[in-house]
Amino acid sequence: MAAALTPATPLRFKPYSTLRFLSFYSKNPTTPRLFPPLPRRPVNFHSPFHPQRCFCSVISAALQSGEVKKTEFPEKKVGEMGSKVGEFRKKVKIADIKGGPDEGLNRVGQTLVVMGWVRTLRVQSSVTFLEVNDGSSLSNMQCVMNSDAEGYDQVESGLISTGASIWVQGTLVASQGSKQKVELKVEKVVLVGKSDPSYPIQKKRVSREFLRTKAHLRPRTNTFGAVARVRNALAYATHKFFQENSFVWISSPIITASDCEGAGEQFCVTTLIPSSREAADSPVIAIPNTKDGLIDWSQDFFGKPAFLTVSGQLNAETYATALTDVYTFGPTFRAENSNTSRHLAEFWMIEPELAFADLNDDMACATAYLQYVVRHVLDNCKEDMEFFNTWIEKGVIDRLNDVAEKDFVQLTYTDAIEILLKENKKFEFPVKWGCDLQSEHERYITEQAFNGCPEIKAFYMRENDDGKTVAAMDMLVPRVGELIGGSQREERLDFLENRLDELKLSKESYWWYLDLRRYGSVPHAGFGLGFERLVQFATGVENIRDAIPFPRTPGSAEF
Amino acid sequence: MAAALTPATPLRFKPYSTLRFLSFYSKNPTTPRLFPPLPRRPVNFHSPFHPQRCFCSVISAALQSGEVKKTEFPEKKVGEMGSKVGEFRKKVKIADIKGGPDEGLNRVGQTLVVMGWVRTLRVQSSVTFLEVNDGSSLSNMQCVMNSDAEGYDQVESGLISTGASIWVQGTLVASQGSKQKVELKVEKVVLVGKSDPSYPIQKKRVSREFLRTKAHLRPRTNTFGAVARVRNALAYATHKFFQENSFVWISSPIITASDCEGAGEQFCVTTLIPSSREAADSPVIAIPNTKDGLIDWSQDFFGKPAFLTVSGQLNAETYATALTDVYTFGPTFRAENSNTSRHLAEFWMIEPELAFADLNDDMACATAYLQYVVRHVLDNCKEDMEFFNTWIEKGVIDRLNDVAEKDFVQLTYTDAIEILLKENKKFEFPVKWGCDLQSEHERYITEQAFNGCPEIKAFYMRENDDGKTVAAMDMLVPRVGELIGGSQREERLDFLENRLDELKLSKESYWWYLDLRRYGSVPHAGFGLGFERLVQFATGVENIRDAIPFPRTPGSAEF
Repeated sequence: MAAALTPATPLRFKPYSTLRFLSFYSKNPTTPRLFPPLPRRPVNFHSPFHPQRCFCSVISAALQSGEVKKTEFPEKKVGEMGSKVGEFRKKVKIADIKGGPDEGLNRVGQTLVVMGWVRTLRVQSSVTFLEVNDGSSLSNMQCVMNSDAEGYDQVESGLISTGASIWVQGTLVASQGSKQKVELKVEKVVLVGKSDPSYPIQKKRVSREFLRTKAHLRPRTNTFGAVARVRNALAYATHKFFQENSFVWISSPIITASDCEGAGEQFCVTTLIPSSREAADSPVIAIPNTKDGLIDWSQDFFGKPAFLTVSGQLNAETYATALTDVYTFGPTFRAENSNTSRHLAEFWMIEPELAFADLNDDMACATAYLQYVVRHVLDNCKEDMEFFNTWIEKGVIDRLNDVAEKDFVQLTYTDAIEILLKENKKFEFPVKWGCDLQSEHERYITEQAFNGCPEIKAFYMRENDDGKTVAAMDMLVPRVGELIGGSQREERLDFLENRLDELKLSKESYWWYLDLRRYGSVPHAGFGLGFERLVQFATGVENIRDAIPFPRTPGSAEF
Repeated sequence: MAAALTPATPLRFKPYSTLRFLSFYSKNPTTPRLFPPLPRRPVNFHSPFHPQRCFCSVISAALQSGEVKKTEFPEKKVGEMGSKVGEFRKKVKIADIKGGPDEGLNRVGQTLVVMGWVRTLRVQSSVTFLEVNDGSSLSNMQCVMNSDAEGYDQVESGLISTGASIWVQGTLVASQGSKQKVELKVEKVVLVGKSDPSYPIQKKRVSREFLRTKAHLRPRTNTFGAVARVRNALAYATHKFFQENSFVWISSPIITASDCEGAGEQFCVTTLIPSSREAADSPVIAIPNTKDGLIDWSQDFFGKPAFLTVSGQLNAETYATALTDVYTFGPTFRAENSNTSRHLAEFWMIEPELAFADLNDDMACATAYLQYVVRHVLDNCKEDMEFFNTWIEKGVIDRLNDVAEKDFVQLTYTDAIEILLKENKKFEFPVKWGCDLQSEHERYITEQAFNGCPEIKAFYMRENDDGKTVAAMDMLVPRVGELIGGSQREERLDFLENRLDELKLSKESYWWYLDLRRYGSVPHAGFGLGFERLVQFATGVENIRDAIPFPRTPGSAEF
């Protein structure tokens, strides 16, 4: 079966090479058209044989010999009952055909099948050009069609139009156009699904604001297809980087009733309010309450108030102090009412945590991580990056190359202030030692003073009498500003307890976090990176709502 | 910098090779001990220079020449201000030392540093044995120590005890013991963090029930360390399988206000109830309500009721019908009050969705996927799997080998019933055509009739007059039963609309899901797999609460 994963052969619905039996229900052996389960399938582990999907037609075939041992049924009988599951084959997609070093010329002469969606259709006097896209690459397959091709009537009648899905078979030939090396000379075209004339993504350019209202269709555009592929590449590179460096992926919990939360606005998670169908007209008095009129949390699902996590860091620390190096990669939440191009209520975070490590290790790790994922995207998403470079942010490729190749500079706050003061530049927010640096200052430092070289500001701080200072770093990158924030964690039990007292936080609530310092505590450090920020950084996309498939923001949780 | 990721060199806190300046705050240049930020760090992208972590000591060094261009500062000045971020090096861990084919013998004679936690300590007349574990493998490093080793007094005084974290330097030598090929002859030991005598994970075995109450410490045990590593391997293999087959990872939304939800019990997500600190004593009447006494959802964060997702399938379909092959891997939720060893309120799901695919492709993909990840674990987690085979489930390795190597059998419901009827076995639930199959039946089929060979039941169903039948499959595997459920989706607009009408679901709510059928619809199919079920399947762990770091169940969302 492993062999099934490597060779790329043309995709087709693989016929069974063995005998077919068709049950009395199924009258048509080819492409049976079937009914779905409930639109959103519940995972019901208890009753796998759900009544509504039983008693159906079946294709069965001879069971391979040697399969059945220790059974009391005669081999032949069982053999008639089960059949081997078909082999899984990697589909040959447009990216596979055109993505190689010779852009497809090595396949010229092959008969190929392409399945995808029509982007444009140009009818000329003697030939018709169909641009077909399957989402595997920005590039379409140009399909050239004469009137003698099988299925041409569907083009003629207008059934095959922009947005329609089609199946095309043809011979790959060298293209005479300048835009591509190869094109498909069509022998046969089949309309799979037509596109209603109301299709909102026609050739004329539409705004990204409009496309946010069509989040279910926008991946069919050049921009959002490219964002999806680059986002995917960044996610996979993230896993690759940490796995190659022996970090263990940890799923930190999403719902938490731990009293350790509390930073930022949180979403409450509850079953005290009835579930979706009835929710719209729930009377407030139906919510369970105590005799004092307070919400009766004892009747809630978790027996007390529960919230959506704002960070997996504390949980990651528990695993780092057992497995040494771990990382999380999962969704986190903020209930902040921020309707900006930089905020999401739901976003993905990457939070590595390193044991036996200090802030220097943390900065080195953050730097190596960022350079790795940027290099991965430059190497693996060339076409998409050229698209962003042309249409979204001119210079984004140079910017990423700088990040991947230049050394990172670490700079203290004091030195940053000094640089800004020396500049004599008029900033909107005047600079003086002690102020918070604003975006304009950060951008000046990364883009002007260090010429596009990313920089880490390192803050080493031993305890002062004020007890307010910490060892923390922010990584600033050109254009985006802060991309990563990290720190060395307090590993000393007495210091941490004092700190909790100062902040009037309950030591009892933090019992398990304190335990990590009670039993074999180690210096450890970590950082957090907002994944959608990284997608923005890598693509140049300006609004964070365009960096995630289905953005959640105040007033908006559609789709 | 890329070179930093490949070679494995002994880990140490890397000294700067260049000039150091120490600010007036820092009096001790080695291992500065520092204060953490607020225990759970909020990601505050707006004010990166947080007052409490400013104005700190710094180590700065000469900036590499060529770094600074276009700046108006003299090079020397900026050079004094910034320094190059240190190189990130992969740590050499116990797994790296002992995990090779010769189990460490190739490194004999090397001086190595090991950092980890003391598992056991045996003081004999002339030597002391310390078993040190760093979580990179099940294996400890046996550290052998004479009384002349530096730091031996900390052993003598009892400071270095079970659970303590230590730094050990020594020479790797061939071991005379039978349990390992190599051991570390200690030259120097440093106590990093002592362990309070109350440490709950002493050598005597403790129950897994007890360890669930110590979820923050249980990864320090053999079982939970191994589960974490195998879980990690399964997650990475999942990404590898889909990436190698050109699937695009999609993050389906966690919070949804879409009316398309509704299957199963859902958690409500709201900000109408104040956030954590105040939540415990919230009066019910403080919840915004309309003049009719209903909850006023217009004042909620999303302007209407919102819930935690139960599946990413519908969202995945929107991307599959643009990018052809996609998969999700993220958390999903059920608010079911099921206190069993098979249910979690929060669990991770993998949901691939394939366009231009039917149920046969779906089964083939599910089979190839499962075989791939099982093979990956067998190849990469040998030591952990031997541990499970010995201590958790005898035969688990054979069971997994069967899955990885044998053909999968697909079987119809009718045939499954026939096999069971022929058996004349006394089942608790009698078998007849039309009944739901129970676990005992599924287990009989997978474990007896097909001798450990996994099986897919395929249900092909064209539409009947009853409109209740679907093309769906469940994958049953020995011991666990149903592991995967999947189906071909209804791609025909009219059929889907009829189905919604029959179920009295609102077509308006499903407008975007219907759009996928309106514009270039394609046959497509997918499946869902509960990731914790897969972890149970691969490890033999009986209770699903032991297959996830921090389980969420009714009444329990601690840590």
